[in-house]
Amino acid sequence: MTGDISLLEAEFSALSPRRAVQRALERYGDELVISFSGAEDVLLLEYAATSGHPFQVLSLDTGRLHPETYRYFQVVAERYQIRVEFAFPDAAAVEQLVRAKGLFSFYEDGHAECCAIRKVEPLRRHLAGRRAWITGQRRDQSPGTRAALAPVEPDPVFRGKHDQPVLKFSPLYQTTSAEVWAEIEALGLPYNPLHARGMVSIGCEPCTRPILPGQHERDGRWWWENVNKKECGLHRPT
Amino acid sequence: MTGDISLLEAEFSALSPRRAVQRALERYGDELVISFSGAEDVLLLEYAATSGHPFQVLSLDTGRLHPETYRYFQVVAERYQIRVEFAFPDAAAVEQLVRAKGLFSFYEDGHAECCAIRKVEPLRRHLAGRRAWITGQRRDQSPGTRAALAPVEPDPVFRGKHDQPVLKFSPLYQTTSAEVWAEIEALGLPYNPLHARGMVSIGCEPCTRPILPGQHERDGRWWWENVNKKECGLHRPT
Amino acid sequence: MTGDISLLEAEFSALSPRRAVQRALERYGDELVISFSGAEDVLLLEYAATSGHPFQVLSLDTGRLHPETYRYFQVVAERYQIRVEFAFPDAAAVEQLVRAKGLFSFYEDGHAECCAIRKVEPLRRHLAGRRAWITGQRRDQSPGTRAALAPVEPDPVFRGKHDQPVLKFSPLYQTTSAEVWAEIEALGLPYNPLHARGMVSIGCEPCTRPILPGQHERDGRWWWENVNKKECGLHRPT
Amino acid sequence: MTGDISLLEAEFSALSPRRAVQRALERYGDELVISFSGAEDVLLLEYAATSGHPFQVLSLDTGRLHPETYRYFQVVAERYQIRVEFAFPDAAAVEQLVRAKGLFSFYEDGHAECCAIRKVEPLRRHLAGRRAWITGQRRDQSPGTRAALAPVEPDPVFRGKHDQPVLKFSPLYQTTSAEVWAEIEALGLPYNPLHARGMVSIGCEPCTRPILPGQHERDGRWWWENVNKKECGLHRPT
Repeated sequence: MTGDISLLEAEFSALSPRRAVQRALERYGDELVISFSGAEDVLLLEYAATSGHPFQVLSLDTGRLHPETYRYFQVVAERYQIRVEFAFPDAAAVEQLVRAKGLFSFYEDGHAECCAIRKVEPLRRHLAGRRAWITGQRRDQSPGTRAALAPVEPDPVFRGKHDQPVLKFSPLYQTTSAEVWAEIEALGLPYNPLHARGMVSIGCEPCTRPILPGQHERDGRWWWENVNKKECGLHRPT
Repeated sequence: MTGDISLLEAEFSALSPRRAVQRALERYGDELVISFSGAEDVLLLEYAATSGHPFQVLSLDTGRLHPETYRYFQVVAERYQIRVEFAFPDAAAVEQLVRAKGLFSFYEDGHAECCAIRKVEPLRRHLAGRRAWITGQRRDQSPGTRAALAPVEPDPVFRGKHDQPVLKFSPLYQTTSAEVWAEIEALGLPYNPLHARGMVSIGCEPCTRPILPGQHERDGRWWWENVNKKECGLHRPT
Repeated sequence: MTGDISLLEAEFSALSPRRAVQRALERYGDELVISFSGAEDVLLLEYAATSGHPFQVLSLDTGRLHPETYRYFQVVAERYQIRVEFAFPDAAAVEQLVRAKGLFSFYEDGHAECCAIRKVEPLRRHLAGRRAWITGQRRDQSPGTRAALAPVEPDPVFRGKHDQPVLKFSPLYQTTSAEVWAEIEALGLPYNPLHARGMVSIGCEPCTRPILPGQHERDGRWWWENVNKKECGLHRPT
Repeated sequence: MTGDISLLEAEFSALSPRRAVQRALERYGDELVISFSGAEDVLLLEYAATSGHPFQVLSLDTGRLHPETYRYFQVVAERYQIRVEFAFPDAAAVEQLVRAKGLFSFYEDGHAECCAIRKVEPLRRHLAGRRAWITGQRRDQSPGTRAALAPVEPDPVFRGKHDQPVLKFSPLYQTTSAEVWAEIEALGLPYNPLHARGMVSIGCEPCTRPILPGQHERDGRWWWENVNKKECGLHRPT
């Protein structure tokens, strides 16, 4: 497998983001799913939709997203004429957490526990039958945790079909935020209206805030925590 | 039971809302739960908190509430030093609905299906072990469906402990919206900030809107549907 | 004049609001102006526009209106294909006040001084050449100050052409807020979007706030002052 | 004068922004005024306030600012215990423009006419008695028009005392937006809350909008006009 990965990485590091999405779809077909967060990773869907291949989309509905994000999911689903697969948290796990600690425990003892219930576990369940997934991660999103992100790697967190490693593709790994936004504008893609209210990185509503001019996008997430730990558990820091 | 109910109804129809809450707590203790929607039914919690009795609070977190409502739950929990029990929808049921019909199917074919998954089933589960619950329903909330609401009745929808009928108390059944708000102001109770943005009846975010001057509060809920069907299934029209 | 007024009052008290606007336009032509505040008095413009007579509209731009109100003026101007005459405050007077007391002195020592500069003086200047004006005042707007409002009266505050009394028509004097809003909805008229954010009575931005359910519309204006003094000086309390 | 200016420019180009403000205050005393726009140029006021010298502040109240900006003026005035001098537009000029063209003519035929009335003329009046003013202009604010901005120059637009040239100091001419914001954060200065809603460059409400991630701050101003003309007339393009 290590050898395969080296070859894959060599192959995909030579591809443009658009070509990488296309190539991954060709290789893995319906055993691959594109993760869509409701933010600027809409670019992945655009690439997929124009690739000529069918594609599947998976989103995490944590139960605490912004109303604007839910509506944006709908806008995107209509644009690309797709049915998004949503991963939703387990009722018992959520009920137990909020009964014990209230609805905002993350402000007190960190976001890991809540993310584990609302994001990691549901995603694990939904990746279990797949061989590969595509994420919109970029190296420039989080200096502390994503600086060494690869174009493709065996997912360090999740397992796939038959409990085998699931491949994680990150076609935008070298793309910068400025490039992503220039392309969204050039292609006239719809965007989450929260981006026009000062939010750059968008996640759950209580854990997202607008940034001030000059701040890094990661300053808008989990701002009460240490800058080097700003991952939700979906992606192990590189 | 019919006789008992007549006696109960006679007893509770003679009580002020405050006394009715107190009396229900005395009678049913920890087999009773107070339902709190995150709106002006905060009055029930105030009555309970000042009754001298311990009390339990149950809220429905449908996964689609306004961010302001989640924060208001927290404000209330801190004020009364309580841990609210939240009922959360079943993941598989939500995932199946949104996969098949998207996140806003209620605008197309009515709110009953979504409410059944996000409100009715979770509440059913959480009432199953109880003998009684208290709601903030009022006759004036919905001319089409709540005009004959009783101060107490065997719940027409839910079953309680040992699959026996669960009693539903509605201490505010004869109270008007104006009276509720006068009391909230007089007592200086915290309120959901959405009430200061034109919303009167508050439910899920996509199914709630501000009303214009002169409109009935029910015009702010499920406005695309017939006025006489505006119940979410928690309460059978009277 | 007293006799004339009695006759006029008798005539106009028998007219519907719509007919009253029409009749006033017929009588006074271009010596009459309709005052439009940017709120629910849009009804007056609708009546004028459908009367078949030309009409003039005067609005007060105090320099502190809500952005939404400015936009609503534009919507209305386009709908009725009119050029609104705006009365704007005198620069020296505004500069002197804000230099001496800051931009929010009204919260400290009352709104009379600011209203005198931003509303009363500009209106005085713009009524000076007229013989009559129409206002949207209603008796139910302010129990403390408007309970005895007449359908027409010599304006108790302003003078008109040749320093003669200017007639003030209030065709909606007996209409209730609920009736006004029912008609706006029935006619499908555009409304200030602030009305859909909990504001009922709308004036300057710092002196207007949303009201809670059950509050009187006047609770949304100059809320830090005594309820019986809530006039801006345009209208002497009746 | 040219020689003087060369010397002055040499002197001020060697000073830090903080020292430049201090030095200008020492030289020109009460014949100098600091211009404050209600945005990130608050840094100038901080430098002045900590310089130990008395200082005067001038702001333009165009009559169309955001409510948030008016409130921010007040916050700043209280923090520094100052009375701000506001320049307000001439009533007749505003009334004539809006009567003829409506309240949003700038969207149709450019912002120059409105800016001339609401900003340039009032500023001209208020600079007339001065020998110097300080602005928060920076070279990086507008690539098309401010790239050659000097630390000090005879104002190319306005005249001062005795109709002599008025000196314009721009202590932040070489400072970048990122540096300004880092300092605002480091010093804990209050900022206009619109900066936390996606707005970077802030002017009049109808002529300001939030920018998307990756856009230049000037994209948030007069976006319907050519990028190289984005000056309001206060500052001649360099």
